[in-house]
Amino acid sequence: MPAISERAQLVPPSPIRKLVPYANAAKAQGKKVLHLNIGQPDLPTPPEFWEALRTAQIKVLDYTESAGMPAFREAYARFYKEIYGIPLEPDQVLTTTGGSEALLFALLTLFSPGDEVIVIEPTYANYIGLGWATGITLRPVQSHIKEDFALPAPDVLEDAITSRTRGILLCNPSNPTGKLYSETEVRQIAEICHRYGLFLLSDESYRDYCYDGKRFFSALEVKGAESFVVVIDTLSKRYSVCGARIGALISRNAEVIQAALKWAQARLAPPTLGQIGGLALLSLPSSYYSLIQETFQKRRDVLIEGLRTIPGVTVATVQGAFYLMPKLPISDSDAFAQWLLERFDIDGVTVMVAPGTGFFSQPEQGKSLVRIAYVLDTPYLEQAVEILRAALNIYAREQVPIL
Amino acid sequence: MPAISERAQLVPPSPIRKLVPYANAAKAQGKKVLHLNIGQPDLPTPPEFWEALRTAQIKVLDYTESAGMPAFREAYARFYKEIYGIPLEPDQVLTTTGGSEALLFALLTLFSPGDEVIVIEPTYANYIGLGWATGITLRPVQSHIKEDFALPAPDVLEDAITSRTRGILLCNPSNPTGKLYSETEVRQIAEICHRYGLFLLSDESYRDYCYDGKRFFSALEVKGAESFVVVIDTLSKRYSVCGARIGALISRNAEVIQAALKWAQARLAPPTLGQIGGLALLSLPSSYYSLIQETFQKRRDVLIEGLRTIPGVTVATVQGAFYLMPKLPISDSDAFAQWLLERFDIDGVTVMVAPGTGFFSQPEQGKSLVRIAYVLDTPYLEQAVEILRAALNIYAREQVPIL
Repeated sequence: MPAISERAQLVPPSPIRKLVPYANAAKAQGKKVLHLNIGQPDLPTPPEFWEALRTAQIKVLDYTESAGMPAFREAYARFYKEIYGIPLEPDQVLTTTGGSEALLFALLTLFSPGDEVIVIEPTYANYIGLGWATGITLRPVQSHIKEDFALPAPDVLEDAITSRTRGILLCNPSNPTGKLYSETEVRQIAEICHRYGLFLLSDESYRDYCYDGKRFFSALEVKGAESFVVVIDTLSKRYSVCGARIGALISRNAEVIQAALKWAQARLAPPTLGQIGGLALLSLPSSYYSLIQETFQKRRDVLIEGLRTIPGVTVATVQGAFYLMPKLPISDSDAFAQWLLERFDIDGVTVMVAPGTGFFSQPEQGKSLVRIAYVLDTPYLEQAVEILRAALNIYAREQVPIL
Repeated sequence: MPAISERAQLVPPSPIRKLVPYANAAKAQGKKVLHLNIGQPDLPTPPEFWEALRTAQIKVLDYTESAGMPAFREAYARFYKEIYGIPLEPDQVLTTTGGSEALLFALLTLFSPGDEVIVIEPTYANYIGLGWATGITLRPVQSHIKEDFALPAPDVLEDAITSRTRGILLCNPSNPTGKLYSETEVRQIAEICHRYGLFLLSDESYRDYCYDGKRFFSALEVKGAESFVVVIDTLSKRYSVCGARIGALISRNAEVIQAALKWAQARLAPPTLGQIGGLALLSLPSSYYSLIQETFQKRRDVLIEGLRTIPGVTVATVQGAFYLMPKLPISDSDAFAQWLLERFDIDGVTVMVAPGTGFFSQPEQGKSLVRIAYVLDTPYLEQAVEILRAALNIYAREQVPIL
C-alpha cells in the first residue's frame, strides 16, 4: 500500500474544525453547544441575496468565466469605489471560491516553494495549512497580548527578513486576535515591503468590522504600493454568506491578476449561485455596514467586560473583526476545549472555542490561549461567559488527566 | 517591484478558456458562437435541484462541515450503491468544490513535490495546471487516434515508471478523447499500480456518459485495490450543474480521506447551496441516467458521421464522455481556433473549439487536433460541422499568417 505524501502527513488539522466530532457527540447526547469556535456571523443573510436567486430564471446552472461573471466583477469594483472610496477596475478583481481560494491563488502566484513569508502571530490557522499546500515557509513574528497585539516594531519585522523572504502576509483586522492595524501600522509594513522588494498580501476579510469609530485603512490606499499590494477579500463575513463561497483576489498589478487567472482556469469557475446572489449584495446601502458595526461592537463590549471578571483571565483591548483571544488559566487549550465539549455543561449547555495552539507555528505558544468568535447575540455571550467562569473554576480543581 | 513566482510564469493557461476574450469580441460584433469548447452539458438542470433550494428555508447561509453536510455524504454513498451498485460508506466520500478541487486535494495528499504521475495523453488540460500548482511532474504516455485512443500496452506504461513514479492518473471516460476504458483495461492499470506500489487516481467525472450499451467499470470495483484507488467524482456533468461546484473525493483508504480532510479544512467548506440542491439530485431515478445516454449517443453519432465527410478530417470511434478529438488538416490548432472566432462565420455564426495543444505536455503534439464537446442539440452540431467544413476549406487556401 503506497504511503500518503509527507506534506499530507505534516499539515496540521484546523484547530477551528478538528473538534467538530466532539461537538457532534455532545449534541447527540442532547447538549446545546454555543459555537464560539467558528467565524461565521449569525446575522441573517440579507433578503436581497435570496431575491436575486429567486428571480434569476436559470435553466442550466452553468460555469461562469473563470475570473467570475463580468457583471459581478463590475459590481465589485463599483462597490469598492462607492462604499470604501477605493477606485478599482473590474479587471483588478478576480472572483474566487471564498477568501480561502483567493489566498491559495495569491500564494501560488507570488511565491515559490521554499520562499519565506512573514506572518504576525497569533495568525489565522488556515494560513498554516495553505502554506503547506503551496510549499511556502511562514516565518512568524510574535505580537503580544500584553501589548494588545500591536504590530511588532519595524526593526523586529526587519530582523525576520532573510534572503528567502518574498512577502508579508497581514490579516487586518486580525483573525484571531481582533487587532485592527492603524493607517500608520499599514504604512509601516508597506514601507518595509517597498524597501525590501516584498509583496504585501493583505487579508482584509474582516474590514467591515471596526469599532470605536475607527476607520479601516486598506493596503490598497497606500500610494506607490500598487505593484506589490495584493488584497484578499470575501463576501462571507460582510454579508453572512459564508456558505456561498465567494471572495476575491484584488490587485492593481495586472501581471498578478493575469497569472492568478491561470490557476483560476485550472479549477474552472467560482460558484455561480453565490455570484448571482452576491451581485445583489454589493449594491446594499451604506447603512447596512453601520448596522454590522453597531451590533458587533456591543457584543465585543459585553464579552470583554464579562471575561475580565473571570479570575485569571486576560483580554486585550482590540477594535476589529469579531474575535477575541483571551489568555485563560489553563496549560493545554486543546485539552480544555475538548473537555468543555465532552465533560462540561450548565443545564445542558456548553461552549465550543478554538484552541490557541493552532494559531502558532509552534503550537505550545498557544497553550493558554483560546479564540472566541462573538458571532452570537449578547444574551448568549453572557451565558457563554458564565459557562466559561464555572468551567475554569472546576477545571482548575479537577486537574483532569487528558488523553 | 517583486516578480511573480516561477510556477505562475510557467503554468500554461487553459486551452479551453484562454480564447474567451476572442469569443467575447466575436459576440460583441454580433456573431453567434456555438460553444463546443467547454464541457458543459446543455440539458436543463433537473427541477428537483431548484425545488430543494426553494424549500430550504435558510436564514443564514452558513458553512457546512469541511467534508460536506453529513446528509449529503450519506446521500452520496446511497446513490453509489443504488445507481452504480458500488457499496460505499459516507465517510469514504469527501465533498469538494467540484471535481477540480477533489483532484487538487488528491494530488496534495497522495504525492510530494517532484513525484511523477503517469497520465495518458492527450490528457485533460487542467491536470497540467494542477500539476504545476502541486509541484508534481506529469509523465505522459501517448494514446493514438489511429488506435481509437486505446490504453497503451502494459509494457509501454511500465516503461514510463521511474523511481519517482507514485501514481497513475486515469480519466475514464477520457476528457478530451472520449475513450471509454474497458473493464480489462482498468484491471490492467490497477494491476500495474498494485505491482509497483502506485496510487490509481481515477477521474470518473464522465462515467454517466457511456454509449453503445457499454457498462462503465469503476476503479472502485477492482477487488483488492481498496487501499490504492482514489476516485474523482462530480455532480457537474451528471446533472447539468457545473456552476454548483460540487464534487467528491472517494476512497476506501481511510488514511487518504483523513489526510485530504485537512486540506478541506484549510479552505473551510464546499458551497452550501450546491450541496442542498445536489442532495435532491442524488435521489433521481435510474431513468434519468438512461436519458443522458440516449441523448448524447445520438449527438456523438451525428457529429462523428458529419466530421468524417469533411476532407482531411480523422475521427476516432469512441464510446464515452461528450468529447471528440478529431485530427484536422491544420498545422496550428491555436491559430485555427482563434481564426474561427476572429475572422470566420457563416451567416453570423461561428464555432469555438479547444485547441489540441493544451492537452499535451509537449504542446506541438496537439497542433492538428482540436477538442469538440458535443454539448449542443443535434441541429447545432450539424450546423457546426458545416461551419467547420467551410472554414477548413477557406483556411487551407488562405494560409493565414497568425500572430
